[in-house]
Amino acid sequence: MAGTSFTLELLQPLALDGGGELASPQIAYETYGELNEDRSNAILLCHALTGDQYVASPHPVTGKPGWWERMVGPGKPIDTDRYHVVCANVIGSCMGSSGPASEASDGKPYAMRFPVITIRDMVRALVALLDELGIEQLHAVVGGSMGGMQALSLAANWRERAARVLVVASTSRHSAQNIAFHELGRQAIMADPNWRQGDYYDAAEQPDAGLAVARIAAHITYLSEEALTGKFGRNLQDREAKSFGFDADFQVESYLRYQGSGFTRRFDANSYLYITRAMDYFDLAEEHGGKLADAFAGTSARFCLVSFDSDWLYPTSESRHVVRALNAAGAAVSFVELSAPHGHDSFLLDVPALDRVVKGFIE
Amino acid sequence: MAGTSFTLELLQPLALDGGGELASPQIAYETYGELNEDRSNAILLCHALTGDQYVASPHPVTGKPGWWERMVGPGKPIDTDRYHVVCANVIGSCMGSSGPASEASDGKPYAMRFPVITIRDMVRALVALLDELGIEQLHAVVGGSMGGMQALSLAANWRERAARVLVVASTSRHSAQNIAFHELGRQAIMADPNWRQGDYYDAAEQPDAGLAVARIAAHITYLSEEALTGKFGRNLQDREAKSFGFDADFQVESYLRYQGSGFTRRFDANSYLYITRAMDYFDLAEEHGGKLADAFAGTSARFCLVSFDSDWLYPTSESRHVVRALNAAGAAVSFVELSAPHGHDSFLLDVPALDRVVKGFIE
Repeated sequence: MAGTSFTLELLQPLALDGGGELASPQIAYETYGELNEDRSNAILLCHALTGDQYVASPHPVTGKPGWWERMVGPGKPIDTDRYHVVCANVIGSCMGSSGPASEASDGKPYAMRFPVITIRDMVRALVALLDELGIEQLHAVVGGSMGGMQALSLAANWRERAARVLVVASTSRHSAQNIAFHELGRQAIMADPNWRQGDYYDAAEQPDAGLAVARIAAHITYLSEEALTGKFGRNLQDREAKSFGFDADFQVESYLRYQGSGFTRRFDANSYLYITRAMDYFDLAEEHGGKLADAFAGTSARFCLVSFDSDWLYPTSESRHVVRALNAAGAAVSFVELSAPHGHDSFLLDVPALDRVVKGFIE
Repeated sequence: MAGTSFTLELLQPLALDGGGELASPQIAYETYGELNEDRSNAILLCHALTGDQYVASPHPVTGKPGWWERMVGPGKPIDTDRYHVVCANVIGSCMGSSGPASEASDGKPYAMRFPVITIRDMVRALVALLDELGIEQLHAVVGGSMGGMQALSLAANWRERAARVLVVASTSRHSAQNIAFHELGRQAIMADPNWRQGDYYDAAEQPDAGLAVARIAAHITYLSEEALTGKFGRNLQDREAKSFGFDADFQVESYLRYQGSGFTRRFDANSYLYITRAMDYFDLAEEHGGKLADAFAGTSARFCLVSFDSDWLYPTSESRHVVRALNAAGAAVSFVELSAPHGHDSFLLDVPALDRVVKGFIE
């Protein structure tokens, strides 16, 4: 299946947490399935750091299947025969929504003149899109990883907009270690001379080397130690013995190099800086006076949190922390820790138990 | 206290696991305390990846105290009033022993012409040093992290050379995740245009940016999530509120930038490539027909392994794996997992329980 692609240009400027605003931002999105007459069957899917709106359509750059094809489609857990699925590229990204690569009012790319944004700013743009679509209340908002942060932010700041909130492999705040890994990626990008303080869009050389290193760093955090050992161990790549050189002797090296270089084809280095910054700034309790339960006070939405036992990026303890706050706020919440070997990436991979949880919760 | 510094030039070439040899390698080392008449009170200390021979002397570049001053000295757990302590810079490194920055026979730095070495090659150089010093059998060989790999390699391959083998926070093999983090560091260095395929020694600009990124990546793995949270949490650096920019807003960012840039003053980027490669190649079982117990068959040395509960780089399971092999080989082995909050770096930090274990074992 393929979704239908749209781009909305907001006529109102979008106010931002940093104090500024984005004049007439663009929001690129895909939809799947029909919106019913009373506009009550919409599900908003929120994508992760390097994700995009191509949930269940081939990616226009790589040609690869959408990132959640296994979950979204006719008869699938998020059944497009029943639900109208909307997924928008977040602002700050690079797949059609306004970001650092977009044209500023002077006709040149914003580059580092793009304002620093927050997760709440991303959600503000999504809410503007829902307004435009006439969707008063979502049947559900669903997101994994950074998508889960957006789902939590929507639930906390626009309380009536979602009847169900499904948060997978996510967190209510970025930890020091989470920030450290992102800072590592940013330093790798900024250390690349081709980054040119962000002004590389017209240059012959792009900061691909730095962006690839950033991607490798992130990718390691997406996989569990067990997954790496199970998948690669110490196996050699296309050779019988060590080369005693600096080629990719080990399969895991070869895999990471491939992940790094493949990523630069489809992603903008400045977007990587802006989106990681937004994630590092995310602390839902801080936004609400320091107490996470206060973020959810009086909510009438139903929540479901899912974590994976092998996820060391946003471990189960982070989901439990959110669940405790929701309990303290008197919210309806269910929680499940799923056993899956893949680490953080489990939310994107073949974990049938997740399919059942998603299907069961949104029905 | 200060040690005494020496540099030995081996008259014999050093054969290497990769098939080649190093002609007349230099080995720079420090000694502390007196060697007794029957040369039976020597303790060989083996240093970690970015360590050096300055165990308990001020570092000649940074002026900082030696890396194990808390452990080595008169009246300290490794008591230099009783023991003759020897610590040599490993080959491949950059503090006086032969490495990629050393002069090759053509009078120019080896750079990437330096042969790829292994942990066993490093130990082969240490054994040559012991031969030169007339030390037939060590009272003990002691090492943490990569130093522990050397201690294990010595015990396995030169069985009579050490009566006691103390291995702290180490492993008998590099896991896929260990390799992944090192590959990340190597990619960061090689992505730096100032690296110039390793030929940067005469250049105006050095590959400091890439080396700093590699150091940041490694440093994250040296600290536990709890240590980072306890030390920094989400605290801001010298400011009241987020800057909505890309400066180091968070203390953890500032700390990592400082760690990265400070490191480039004292370490050579090519050495970082060579030593990480040696560690990734390390698999003591593979060297001995695939069965780790066979590495230790017939040993008469006493072993002690120490792990830290918060070490996720070389977790307790890796030490247990070695202990099981030693048990299978019928070796005398004791093992303790210490509780310390600092992660892998615990072996260098204030953990009084470690002092007691070290003191008790070597007596």
